[in-house]
Amino acid sequence: MTSQFQKKSEAWSARFSEPVSDLVKRYTASVFFDNRMAEVDIQGSLAHAEMLCAQGIITTQDHADIQRGMAQILDEIRNGQFTWLLDLEDVHLNIEKRLTELVGDAGKRLHTGRSRNDQVATDIRLYLRGAIDQIVGLLKDLRAALINLAEQNTDTILPGFTHMQVAQPITFGHHMLAYVEMFSRDTERLLDCRKRVNRLPLGAAALAGTTFPIDRERVAATLGFDAVCYNSLDAVSDRDFAIEFCAAAALIMTHISRMSEELIIWMSPRVGFIDMADRFCTGSSIMPQKKNPDVPELARGKTGRVNGHLIALLTLMKGQPLAYNKDNQEDKEPLFDTVDTLVDTLRIFADLATGIRVKPDAMRAAAFQGYATATDLADYLVKKGLPFRDAHEAVAHAVRTCVEKNCDLSELPLAELQAYSALIGDDVFEVLTLEGSVAARNHVGGTAPEQVRLAIARARAALN
Amino acid sequence: MTSQFQKKSEAWSARFSEPVSDLVKRYTASVFFDNRMAEVDIQGSLAHAEMLCAQGIITTQDHADIQRGMAQILDEIRNGQFTWLLDLEDVHLNIEKRLTELVGDAGKRLHTGRSRNDQVATDIRLYLRGAIDQIVGLLKDLRAALINLAEQNTDTILPGFTHMQVAQPITFGHHMLAYVEMFSRDTERLLDCRKRVNRLPLGAAALAGTTFPIDRERVAATLGFDAVCYNSLDAVSDRDFAIEFCAAAALIMTHISRMSEELIIWMSPRVGFIDMADRFCTGSSIMPQKKNPDVPELARGKTGRVNGHLIALLTLMKGQPLAYNKDNQEDKEPLFDTVDTLVDTLRIFADLATGIRVKPDAMRAAAFQGYATATDLADYLVKKGLPFRDAHEAVAHAVRTCVEKNCDLSELPLAELQAYSALIGDDVFEVLTLEGSVAARNHVGGTAPEQVRLAIARARAALN
Amino acid sequence: MTSQFQKKSEAWSARFSEPVSDLVKRYTASVFFDNRMAEVDIQGSLAHAEMLCAQGIITTQDHADIQRGMAQILDEIRNGQFTWLLDLEDVHLNIEKRLTELVGDAGKRLHTGRSRNDQVATDIRLYLRGAIDQIVGLLKDLRAALINLAEQNTDTILPGFTHMQVAQPITFGHHMLAYVEMFSRDTERLLDCRKRVNRLPLGAAALAGTTFPIDRERVAATLGFDAVCYNSLDAVSDRDFAIEFCAAAALIMTHISRMSEELIIWMSPRVGFIDMADRFCTGSSIMPQKKNPDVPELARGKTGRVNGHLIALLTLMKGQPLAYNKDNQEDKEPLFDTVDTLVDTLRIFADLATGIRVKPDAMRAAAFQGYATATDLADYLVKKGLPFRDAHEAVAHAVRTCVEKNCDLSELPLAELQAYSALIGDDVFEVLTLEGSVAARNHVGGTAPEQVRLAIARARAALN
Amino acid sequence: MTSQFQKKSEAWSARFSEPVSDLVKRYTASVFFDNRMAEVDIQGSLAHAEMLCAQGIITTQDHADIQRGMAQILDEIRNGQFTWLLDLEDVHLNIEKRLTELVGDAGKRLHTGRSRNDQVATDIRLYLRGAIDQIVGLLKDLRAALINLAEQNTDTILPGFTHMQVAQPITFGHHMLAYVEMFSRDTERLLDCRKRVNRLPLGAAALAGTTFPIDRERVAATLGFDAVCYNSLDAVSDRDFAIEFCAAAALIMTHISRMSEELIIWMSPRVGFIDMADRFCTGSSIMPQKKNPDVPELARGKTGRVNGHLIALLTLMKGQPLAYNKDNQEDKEPLFDTVDTLVDTLRIFADLATGIRVKPDAMRAAAFQGYATATDLADYLVKKGLPFRDAHEAVAHAVRTCVEKNCDLSELPLAELQAYSALIGDDVFEVLTLEGSVAARNHVGGTAPEQVRLAIARARAALN
Repeated sequence: MTSQFQKKSEAWSARFSEPVSDLVKRYTASVFFDNRMAEVDIQGSLAHAEMLCAQGIITTQDHADIQRGMAQILDEIRNGQFTWLLDLEDVHLNIEKRLTELVGDAGKRLHTGRSRNDQVATDIRLYLRGAIDQIVGLLKDLRAALINLAEQNTDTILPGFTHMQVAQPITFGHHMLAYVEMFSRDTERLLDCRKRVNRLPLGAAALAGTTFPIDRERVAATLGFDAVCYNSLDAVSDRDFAIEFCAAAALIMTHISRMSEELIIWMSPRVGFIDMADRFCTGSSIMPQKKNPDVPELARGKTGRVNGHLIALLTLMKGQPLAYNKDNQEDKEPLFDTVDTLVDTLRIFADLATGIRVKPDAMRAAAFQGYATATDLADYLVKKGLPFRDAHEAVAHAVRTCVEKNCDLSELPLAELQAYSALIGDDVFEVLTLEGSVAARNHVGGTAPEQVRLAIARARAALN
Repeated sequence: MTSQFQKKSEAWSARFSEPVSDLVKRYTASVFFDNRMAEVDIQGSLAHAEMLCAQGIITTQDHADIQRGMAQILDEIRNGQFTWLLDLEDVHLNIEKRLTELVGDAGKRLHTGRSRNDQVATDIRLYLRGAIDQIVGLLKDLRAALINLAEQNTDTILPGFTHMQVAQPITFGHHMLAYVEMFSRDTERLLDCRKRVNRLPLGAAALAGTTFPIDRERVAATLGFDAVCYNSLDAVSDRDFAIEFCAAAALIMTHISRMSEELIIWMSPRVGFIDMADRFCTGSSIMPQKKNPDVPELARGKTGRVNGHLIALLTLMKGQPLAYNKDNQEDKEPLFDTVDTLVDTLRIFADLATGIRVKPDAMRAAAFQGYATATDLADYLVKKGLPFRDAHEAVAHAVRTCVEKNCDLSELPLAELQAYSALIGDDVFEVLTLEGSVAARNHVGGTAPEQVRLAIARARAALN
Repeated sequence: MTSQFQKKSEAWSARFSEPVSDLVKRYTASVFFDNRMAEVDIQGSLAHAEMLCAQGIITTQDHADIQRGMAQILDEIRNGQFTWLLDLEDVHLNIEKRLTELVGDAGKRLHTGRSRNDQVATDIRLYLRGAIDQIVGLLKDLRAALINLAEQNTDTILPGFTHMQVAQPITFGHHMLAYVEMFSRDTERLLDCRKRVNRLPLGAAALAGTTFPIDRERVAATLGFDAVCYNSLDAVSDRDFAIEFCAAAALIMTHISRMSEELIIWMSPRVGFIDMADRFCTGSSIMPQKKNPDVPELARGKTGRVNGHLIALLTLMKGQPLAYNKDNQEDKEPLFDTVDTLVDTLRIFADLATGIRVKPDAMRAAAFQGYATATDLADYLVKKGLPFRDAHEAVAHAVRTCVEKNCDLSELPLAELQAYSALIGDDVFEVLTLEGSVAARNHVGGTAPEQVRLAIARARAALN
Repeated sequence: MTSQFQKKSEAWSARFSEPVSDLVKRYTASVFFDNRMAEVDIQGSLAHAEMLCAQGIITTQDHADIQRGMAQILDEIRNGQFTWLLDLEDVHLNIEKRLTELVGDAGKRLHTGRSRNDQVATDIRLYLRGAIDQIVGLLKDLRAALINLAEQNTDTILPGFTHMQVAQPITFGHHMLAYVEMFSRDTERLLDCRKRVNRLPLGAAALAGTTFPIDRERVAATLGFDAVCYNSLDAVSDRDFAIEFCAAAALIMTHISRMSEELIIWMSPRVGFIDMADRFCTGSSIMPQKKNPDVPELARGKTGRVNGHLIALLTLMKGQPLAYNKDNQEDKEPLFDTVDTLVDTLRIFADLATGIRVKPDAMRAAAFQGYATATDLADYLVKKGLPFRDAHEAVAHAVRTCVEKNCDLSELPLAELQAYSALIGDDVFEVLTLEGSVAARNHVGGTAPEQVRLAIARARAALN
């Protein structure tokens, strides 16, 4: 009997009367991008074969043959000796054919009780589970690096901005911890997503289950899945997990883009809050003086890429009838590229964070360019008994005078300050210092150095 | 002293030298969409005031005045007697001004130790927490309705499709349970999202915390939050929770769109698997015979709306420097419309599911139009000892003959079947029945009626 | 005979056995957002009736009755006296029912030879054509305002940035003209889009055309359409024009977002390149000193909204079979909101541009903070005979020395400069001035004031 | 002097004190995807060199050296002998370095008066212009194939659907022409986009123009550009053209997805309107009988990919300050993949259209399953004098009776029909035939075979 595989270049199977056209072969083949799942494909096949044998569906000899063949294939793949053939469409058929070459009929028995529909769904989940674990680790590295940077700067004062206008003095350590919060939430989200990734579709077969007496829980246990997918139609057609992962990834990149925006602005000479190690920067082909923060710029741009992949997957699934449709093959490239983008970006940012040189003088100078302690003055008046709204208005008048005189609130003589409220005494000047302002925000979540130190301890504990 | 509020139509505060232009006022005001947060705004203010009083920042009298004023305002809002003013920008200032009208200085003291930045973040989270709880309830109703429909159809056979081609016989009950799985995952995702929604930003003030001795944990407990946001810069600028919610919503709508696609196809006369109650359909202004499945079509279309809102929010946050920027005001309309779309759609689908009339004869007839039991024949051969790949190929030959003869596999005489494999005996015809095929897929997740009944029990238990 | 309209609250038509549920009525009704098309709906109906009469399909008396009724309805709508009923679903049925109330049978004859499918497609196109014309006008206003601002600043020097690092000196006039180019391309794109909007679907009826002897070219001419849609199936289901418009809108908002980003950065106190008129700014509820550039921030945020609407429409149309499906009703809200966003934003930006106060001293100071004339030095060396790559490298060495010494290139003594290349003479210092640098880029598209003046003339001519 | 290139592995230039890290090198390099622009990069460089020579900026000898070197490089690239180096970042530096190796100082002079910023912008435009021309050609092939299919089926009747319910009879030729309309609009849009692609950025240099006496119009003429970009800041940072192209591409894929959806449904056995040539289909690894329409399914899925790329580019540009930022490097992969997707998909669809086998019997049978001629009956009554609304209602009653009796309108006896309107005579039965119904829609855009033939002639003329 002519093998199904050998005839692939002629026709899909005996049921077909003409071969697939070359254009179609190339259009529909996935092997050149899905072969990154080769190791998990083999892992899944071995677990399936082990169960088939335990259930008496294949013989012990068949099982041993499959194990031996797969060991060799894994070796060939790792050594770059495996030949991937377009004619065999995808990673699954490429491996299965090689197995049959190596071990004969046992290879032809491996596909008993499964279909590529549940096989590929299993492979993607195994792949993605690994990717999530790697990304969670990289997020941890990045958080650790930011916590270190925060620790070195618990008392470094810079202006906090809202609307890019000077708002109130804060510490640079506090600012860095804001990003630690974001990346911690990202970690939580990935771990929640992992729960839904880590369920086993295998056993759903094409769409309805199989007539063989399989043991899905056994396969799940072997592969480390938390549970089986409880409905076969859903199991083969569900790509929620990939979308949920890409949504979490889009948030990670959103955080990276915000941090990048700040690094770029801070390194702009007019601002000059930081310098970035040369190894993260590049020059210009025309302007000899340039040192450009390429890494954060590129990372900011890559946000678009990940948002785009999320939309690609959502569009893909919109309105698809059950169960498996070929559309689903389009899930892989966006997913893989999202993983690659995250892995590269997080790795480089963990390193980048160690190469940030803080310039405290520029930060301090900036904190004096925008009446950063005006709220402190209002709070001072409230503590003397004025309702907040009235205090706010009194200080607004004082600020307007300062704008006209081009001076800071702390530079107005006491007498002049008292014109705005008789409640002002000479204890006011302490309130108007940057250190006083920062230290006064001394409650959980506030910018006071004391709180920042507590927050660092909390964040570090959460790393473990 | 002229109140800050009265001067809004002239200038923002004493610091400004010209009033905001009317065009700008309209462009930047949010009151006409954010007033849906009025009740949670008051709830948040009351918890804040309670804490201010407990901490000795305001007096007991002030607290009582605020409570009295707020009670009246709540009443006015519920009775539609509250006048929302564009001049006062947003829900927060509208309510605060009215409070000050009603209770004087106590009203002016309410804003002590907070800012609109942390106030609005608190309001959105309170609002969204309520919305999530409502949507989780509606998902439960929908799952219950689908489970009932499944229970009525544990033995109703229709063809399962892959690639819209007949694949294998399944039961309609099994098919409905695939959607129950999807909506269960949606519920899980919302509950995971809720954990991150349910953290208190209040106390972050403008961006850095406040100089008043506030007790954030107390406010969190009063409002039922699980924790406080641990970094003030992050607290006022974080909109992750809204994005995470919209991503979960996009998946819900993706599931709705898939179900809608199937309902529409099934109701198309050529397919004719179901009929939908008239109350969910509309007619045509020109074609008197039409009965159109408007509800699932519209729901399918609304997928785009929710995907769009997700992209709106991701784009919004991309590259925003810390901390609060006015861009963030654009978070509300997409979020509110997403909630409204989900609430309406889920409510209507729970009802729609009860109005589906299954047409078993059409389903059964269809199951005979595509060699649905070919896999069963291959499995039969495997059980007789043929390797799966060889069995697959043998059956492909048999199917090709049937296509040419325009008959089903079960209609080929035994002798003819045996031409494809000598292993075929007359026990084969049992395997080729729809009932036999379905019953044989009898493992967890499979389509066998026995499994469907177990799955129904499992799904029903998960409702509680 | 009971009228179709009166029975709407009971059942859609005689073909239905139960009324539409209230929930469904609300879910599927569009009248509360599509009534903004009331005037164009009437305009379309009058053109249709005129043609029906000219073709002898209705009588002159019917035509006169319809004209009279529609005149009154238009009046009622404009005076706010028209009652829109949810029960009548949409703007079309609301108006048709009122017409029948007013003029009897003539009203019932108006729908001859058309369907709501081609009617609504005609209405949207009429509406959008008007919106495009308005937006093109607003883009012209904005371009004019920016050209004026450029003209006042043809010689104002600021540093040009790449990667937010100082690159080369440019003029503020030149910078403003970059935006004029963008908004000019936007105008081109809208006019190209308008060609495809301005085609008449009416006459396609439900999907196949009509059996009445209609004259579509006559209706097209009456309504000012350039052509008819040449295929009835396409005519009723095509929404390309809405998507193309939203894509053009997304680019407009992308340009607005880039300009906004710059305005916000320029107004940040550390940069301080401009001030914005108070009427475009707002203050803070807590920080008395704040003056925030709310308008550009909000506009930047609204980019997300428009990107989202584009995705909503693309998702909507994905995979829809021909011809009209109810999904299409979801085209209106995203389209309307896109138009509103553009109209408001462009109007406010044209005004905003007149309220920008340039601060030339800060700009000039900044131009000295980044070796802006390093390229001029390299070019100088090339003109003395050094290959460009070698010149680039020589200057890079010089810059590095300046970075270490914390001085500008122009501050290095000649002898020191000559250490980097013996080709340097004392004519080099002219090259190192900002004015010299800017004036030297004197070719079409360059930043030299002479070129900027030519570009202003060119841009102004293009306005007319 | 150490060459800038040789030192790349150490540090970017003399200005840098440490080399770029390997991770950063890989993260920021583009050479492995931008080398597809190698030929247009050389084309642009040659035009630039020709102008430099004509303007006396480089010597005739330098020009000849550059031409000779580039000819050899082009050869090496075409023969696969060119070695692309990661260390040299991008296609531009790789080629420039090789040129300098081959021809010495002339190579170092090539970059005079330009920057990579304007160079890459020129390259992308040259590349995209070529891609547009190719895609316009493929759209023409596809339209031609659909016109041929339409011509073979001008009289083949199938039910036209709205809401997937049978609406009115149409012809298959008419249906195919709806897609011809869509792809014609796509062609228009691409040609409009091409106008804005075909403008020359070269000469903008880094961002401000150059101090050399360049002649940009000369370069534009050499390269076949319609005009120069008139503002240097805009020239280097504009990516509108890529976004506009991707938006047009998203619409093309939307049309492909709609056509695919129909092909998939039509090939589903319950519908059975068409068969697709085996060479466009694939089988199943488990179900031996399967013949799946993989090509249209995959194409439908690829809609998501292109929508995603559009969003990637819009997100990329959102809020970018002028002028060039490294973010822009992220424009290439989405653009290239969009081009590849379109080219492959359109090529395969033009072939696919020739492999569609129409099954007229199934189409005809379907046209009788849904009262397709009900509108014809209503129109008949209108022509006898009944107002349209009353006719519509009368026919709705008749249809309801047919639904109950399970018969077609044409099967009701005359007497029974007359119960719904006394105006019905025995000429009614002619109106109720499919042929009569189709032929009666005989106006421009209608489905009558006579009109379809005219439309085919019109569409064919537009191909030339």
